Amino acid sequence: MSDIKTISGFSKLSKSDKIKWVVKHFYKDPEQVMQELMSWWHRDEEQQKLLDGFSENTISNFPMPFGIAPNFLINGKAYAVPMVIEESSVVAAASSAAKYWMDRGGFHAQVLGMKKVGQVHFTWKGEMRKLESVFEELKTELRKDAAPITANMEKRGGGVLDIELVNFAHLEEGYYQLKVTFDTCDSMGANFINSALESFAKTLDRFISDHPIFDEGVERDISIIMSILSNYTPECLVRAWVECPVENLGPFSSGLDAALLAEKFRKAVRIAHLDPHRAATHNKGIFNGIDAVVLATANDFRAVEACGHTYAARDGQYRSLSQCTVENGLFRFWLDIPLALGTVGGLTKLHPIAKHSLELLGHPTAEELMMIVASVGLAQNFAAVRSLVTTGIQQGHMKMHLANILNHLGAKGQEVEKAMAYFDGKVISFTGVREFLETLRQKQAAKVV
Amino acid sequence: MSDIKTISGFSKLSKSDKIKWVVKHFYKDPEQVMQELMSWWHRDEEQQKLLDGFSENTISNFPMPFGIAPNFLINGKAYAVPMVIEESSVVAAASSAAKYWMDRGGFHAQVLGMKKVGQVHFTWKGEMRKLESVFEELKTELRKDAAPITANMEKRGGGVLDIELVNFAHLEEGYYQLKVTFDTCDSMGANFINSALESFAKTLDRFISDHPIFDEGVERDISIIMSILSNYTPECLVRAWVECPVENLGPFSSGLDAALLAEKFRKAVRIAHLDPHRAATHNKGIFNGIDAVVLATANDFRAVEACGHTYAARDGQYRSLSQCTVENGLFRFWLDIPLALGTVGGLTKLHPIAKHSLELLGHPTAEELMMIVASVGLAQNFAAVRSLVTTGIQQGHMKMHLANILNHLGAKGQEVEKAMAYFDGKVISFTGVREFLETLRQKQAAKVV
Repeated sequence: MSDIKTISGFSKLSKSDKIKWVVKHFYKDPEQVMQELMSWWHRDEEQQKLLDGFSENTISNFPMPFGIAPNFLINGKAYAVPMVIEESSVVAAASSAAKYWMDRGGFHAQVLGMKKVGQVHFTWKGEMRKLESVFEELKTELRKDAAPITANMEKRGGGVLDIELVNFAHLEEGYYQLKVTFDTCDSMGANFINSALESFAKTLDRFISDHPIFDEGVERDISIIMSILSNYTPECLVRAWVECPVENLGPFSSGLDAALLAEKFRKAVRIAHLDPHRAATHNKGIFNGIDAVVLATANDFRAVEACGHTYAARDGQYRSLSQCTVENGLFRFWLDIPLALGTVGGLTKLHPIAKHSLELLGHPTAEELMMIVASVGLAQNFAAVRSLVTTGIQQGHMKMHLANILNHLGAKGQEVEKAMAYFDGKVISFTGVREFLETLRQKQAAKVV
Repeated sequence: MSDIKTISGFSKLSKSDKIKWVVKHFYKDPEQVMQELMSWWHRDEEQQKLLDGFSENTISNFPMPFGIAPNFLINGKAYAVPMVIEESSVVAAASSAAKYWMDRGGFHAQVLGMKKVGQVHFTWKGEMRKLESVFEELKTELRKDAAPITANMEKRGGGVLDIELVNFAHLEEGYYQLKVTFDTCDSMGANFINSALESFAKTLDRFISDHPIFDEGVERDISIIMSILSNYTPECLVRAWVECPVENLGPFSSGLDAALLAEKFRKAVRIAHLDPHRAATHNKGIFNGIDAVVLATANDFRAVEACGHTYAARDGQYRSLSQCTVENGLFRFWLDIPLALGTVGGLTKLHPIAKHSLELLGHPTAEELMMIVASVGLAQNFAAVRSLVTTGIQQGHMKMHLANILNHLGAKGQEVEKAMAYFDGKVISFTGVREFLETLRQKQAAKVV
């Protein structure tokens, strides 16, 4: 390994030279690591080049398991849902919950709103009432100047919905916003929104500098801080729910009574409403399902996470995104979540697997995808809470983790059986399993000798 | 395509039969899609089997670009940081910010705490003061019964730190918690914590059912709702920061004065403190960097997201995770973020690329990884805000998006140049670019004829 671990002009190196520089400076066995990194390239050079173009300084592909959760009945239509996730038992849990609810009417979902949001943040020391008095005029200018950007979206039925002037001067001297709402149809709309906002910012700047209503001097002095979409879209909202008579919840193999399960389940959800420490984990379970579909369809999971968690904190305390009631013998469990998703634009058509995810879902509209994603989030939450209030989650987790480690260590037949028996009820660690196998193999070798 | 889109026993099918069922029932061109899905399998069957074992019902690998952001100087040590992200310009922005700060003293980072959290949630209608009076005795029992689970972690220097009884009965009748803090050393610790908690729950149940201090009847009747780690770990916290004299921030190619940039930058960060709509997006940018490293090291980004966003809402309003001051001629920019990460356990050693990520980072401890990840998050945030308050972000984004689409559509030489010129300053859409190319090619064909 070389001692010089910094470099100028890395991005300008060829892919091959990038790999060589990285392995030479950071790895004990450069040749071996280079071979392994390259072994994940796609055999078709064009495909690989496309993938490399999604990001920068790429030297390999990071493979994530692409799994299928079948039997999702959503608004009466059956889906097999593509899920990209590295955490074991997430796809199994989603599939299990899907099957369970398929026999109980399936998932129901409804889009409650599709509004996207963007903001032009600016500071200005003029008189607010003057700006308000010419705001209609400004809005006309804003729309007119942005017309080349908005024309195509308008053809598709979307565009700029509303432009508001928001006064934040009570919190920070001279700080205001143009807060803009958009309809971006089946696209997530980030590029469209940001381009429109940057146009609005230019127009606003010119308008305030030029309009005769403003006095020379400080009133003409506007400073645009930034123009950018907001990932917080509380009015781009979807609801997913399941419901059935309490007695139809059972029977459970664990022998738990359906009414008792319903009550424990309701309490578990209520606890996530009351306690942020539990809410974070509860919602994390929802996002296990949501992000897996978001990733599979090449949507942006950071955007979806930021939005959902901000929404979870909207009343001043971070709370559960799902809710549950058990009333008049009816079990109801639902999830309200803002989801700004696209089924056109971005990487949706470009990513070689994501495009197959969208075909698998029947080429959904953005609204349909929102309903699917919310249903999977709810299914995931249902499976997690059901497991927590019945058997606990470790039983399943540990078994899968052990199987992975045994697989990695090349354990076969009798070794697997013995390890399964030995680690039953114990905490599984990589080192523990390796040591167990080593001891076992030494004993076997001694016998053979 | 078949009309029957649900199935029993899908998980029991062989991988090959799973694919066949999926393509037959959901695709117009089953053969073609099957070939494409299979083309992403790793050529080494054992490697592929390992990857399949991470999840369930896997039929392919979803490739994510694995890129490198070099020149990260953190606490005086140089790193090339592995980043897994599908969003263009994230790695480029991180690299640019890394280089920028390398010339200004680099990133500084400090771990402020390493406490993990778990909870046993239960309902009970006994007298609280009785339980409190024997709580020390209960704690001894809890620890004793869990000893087989905690022994290994204690050998590594970790274990159970503290067990508290928390009273939530004022919010929900009869609801209490055992709130437990843990040190899980270099592992994220989910399996360890959950196993310990499930043991605690059993002991608690037995203790209340058996201990003579409790009266027969309702006082012996405890119901364990659930036992599970909390992903919200505000005391597993790291701080990353950069600082330099304001005049050293420049010069900027855009001609912006360093003092003006510092002030606009400070205001942009302040706005994200004041307005949740901006805060969500601001923090989303931080997580662009954080999640890319979290993914590359096979840590759990849903856990990290849930924790960070809950932390952002801790004072009753969702706010920026980073802060900035410009005082006495000094520019300071910092990020406090809770990060529960592992560098052993889970998939860290198992995932074929993640293990190379960890070697690339010099086999960091969990604390070191926390400092790296926080620094990358801060770098990402710096790059985004700098870009927003200077040129705006669309300039770079659009160019990359256009290049991706042109690449996908097989545009070459002159076509690329003409498209670049035509779309300069316009909103890029897949359809728009395709139509432009089609028109261009028709014109060319007409000329040739």
